[in-house]
Amino acid sequence: MRLALDLADRAAIDGEVPVGAVVIRDGAVIATSANTMRTANDPTAHAEIVAIRAAAEALAQPRLDGCDLWVTLEPCAMCAGAIAHARIARVYYAAADPKGGAVEHGPHFFTQPTCHHRPEVYAGIGAEEAALQLRAFFAERR
Amino acid sequence: MRLALDLADRAAIDGEVPVGAVVIRDGAVIATSANTMRTANDPTAHAEIVAIRAAAEALAQPRLDGCDLWVTLEPCAMCAGAIAHARIARVYYAAADPKGGAVEHGPHFFTQPTCHHRPEVYAGIGAEEAALQLRAFFAERR
Repeated sequence: MRLALDLADRAAIDGEVPVGAVVIRDGAVIATSANTMRTANDPTAHAEIVAIRAAAEALAQPRLDGCDLWVTLEPCAMCAGAIAHARIARVYYAAADPKGGAVEHGPHFFTQPTCHHRPEVYAGIGAEEAALQLRAFFAERR
Repeated sequence: MRLALDLADRAAIDGEVPVGAVVIRDGAVIATSANTMRTANDPTAHAEIVAIRAAAEALAQPRLDGCDLWVTLEPCAMCAGAIAHARIARVYYAAADPKGGAVEHGPHFFTQPTCHHRPEVYAGIGAEEAALQLRAFFAERR
């Protein structure tokens, strides 16, 4: 999570909402990313999507069985859907996102009957630092 | 929708689940795509995601305000989330997807309080042909 938080910090410097993500398999980092929606002109470029795509490319396979995703913010519906499609084994996220989260908020996607892969979910690790990063970012822009 | 159905047909020939998508703005085609999950080794490469990314790249902007998305299957949670993030104005989809859909099934994402942009939704145009494409594809693989 330290690495994901550092990636988020760097994203903020680029003017992106500070969210970072890391994909790990068997203790090795497969892919790292940050939110790049604005710099990449890509509405799908949340940190999780970028990390999942990079990991699948690195492993040359369309699924990420056995991989873990560490991310600094609760995944939204788009990212929760991608996590299920990729068959990520475990998701660790830092801050909860009552406004846009889809794991413990809104659709609670992993509990839906239309969700065909349910990762193990561990929330709260690094939550305070991640929440601070986000608050500082939005405070500066107001 | 004719174009999206033809794109889906071509995806099936490549061994991909036959779903096609087209992004339109002011009557002009901005991007076309099909599901390329397997051929691209990308778990996020549903037709809608590929089309949205291509359209945003073509327009060099991170949002698709004023654009319409035509797709041959009801969007899943990942794609519904991406549609909301991209601020797609209108979504036209052909076949409903009771197993994985997130518009009129499962999370009913566009009705969630965590959904921050609700497109107009028109379902059923071309539904019979899209359902036939999908049934034929899965029948052949069983």
